[in-house]
Amino acid sequence: MLITFEGIDGSGKTTISLMLYEFLRERGIRCVLYREPGGTELGEVLRNIVLKKDLNERVELLLFEASRVQLMIEKVKPALEEGKVVILDRFIDSTLAYQGYGRGLDLSFVKQLNEFASFGRKPDLTFLLDISPDVALRRVSEKSRFDDIPFLKRVREGFIRIAREEPRRIVVLNSEKDKEEVFKEVISALSEKLDF
Amino acid sequence: MLITFEGIDGSGKTTISLMLYEFLRERGIRCVLYREPGGTELGEVLRNIVLKKDLNERVELLLFEASRVQLMIEKVKPALEEGKVVILDRFIDSTLAYQGYGRGLDLSFVKQLNEFASFGRKPDLTFLLDISPDVALRRVSEKSRFDDIPFLKRVREGFIRIAREEPRRIVVLNSEKDKEEVFKEVISALSEKLDF
Repeated sequence: MLITFEGIDGSGKTTISLMLYEFLRERGIRCVLYREPGGTELGEVLRNIVLKKDLNERVELLLFEASRVQLMIEKVKPALEEGKVVILDRFIDSTLAYQGYGRGLDLSFVKQLNEFASFGRKPDLTFLLDISPDVALRRVSEKSRFDDIPFLKRVREGFIRIAREEPRRIVVLNSEKDKEEVFKEVISALSEKLDF
Repeated sequence: MLITFEGIDGSGKTTISLMLYEFLRERGIRCVLYREPGGTELGEVLRNIVLKKDLNERVELLLFEASRVQLMIEKVKPALEEGKVVILDRFIDSTLAYQGYGRGLDLSFVKQLNEFASFGRKPDLTFLLDISPDVALRRVSEKSRFDDIPFLKRVREGFIRIAREEPRRIVVLNSEKDKEEVFKEVISALSEKLDF
């Protein structure tokens, strides 16, 4: 089972995905957690390039997708084949929201690249941690490369549209609530699909 | 004017493109020469990754294209706008021949990515330095990652097919001849398009 967490920086993805990872582990469910971009040796090299430099959006897109292919091959596909639950902190929807809706690259082309890089493997369940950019930015201590409000508003709106297109896959959660509240909703949605 | 040299390793691309660069410079024609992958700071980082590791073909494709976008933005487009002649040692046809015909990725998808990465800028003139893999490998001192004969035969055949599809753009030269001979043919073909 492939579970992904999506949302803008400061939405709580990293915290909540780690909480879920530990929750499942404690219940004896074999699971792994990776972040995108990154999660592999090559992926972390690419992450350092892409998050530190002010790159053109096309370069950014291609490097994110390259990191994704490597993660799929090295980690995600083997783990899924072994029957593990795979939790990803960002995946294909981030690319569509940031590089597509946010930076204006052609949406259908980004979708095609997403499919190519993920070998057509869609998540079984996606949590979109929805939050207003203003609230999110106040939470983020480190300055992000993606910190302008109009841009983040486009990204947030992009995420919402993606969620509307695939309501069965994507659960939208109000992430301005307390993280314990949000986590409860994650567990509740998950309990319909996973036995723990 | 954008001129590209294509062919398998050992076909003489690097030598001939340098000869052309010097020839044009001596005649006062402003020109620049770059190699792919590479040609920029980011491109050389990606080149080191992609030529040294045994990567999956999808990762390879995406990193080559990322390097290409960066080269286009930083070097090729500005030089063309300044009216310079741009000479490239490998470009879009290499990607189609190696990752498409050679490694079996979907040809139309590779073409789409090529167009995306090159901003739709096709070369004005391309020289395909055609050579049999056996002869080419004997010329290459350093061992290449792409050194198996059946693979190189597919790549060579791929290049030939690409040239057949675009006979007005791509001039096929027999590169098993002496390099001075090959260079004469390059100059001859070029003299119809460029005043020197």
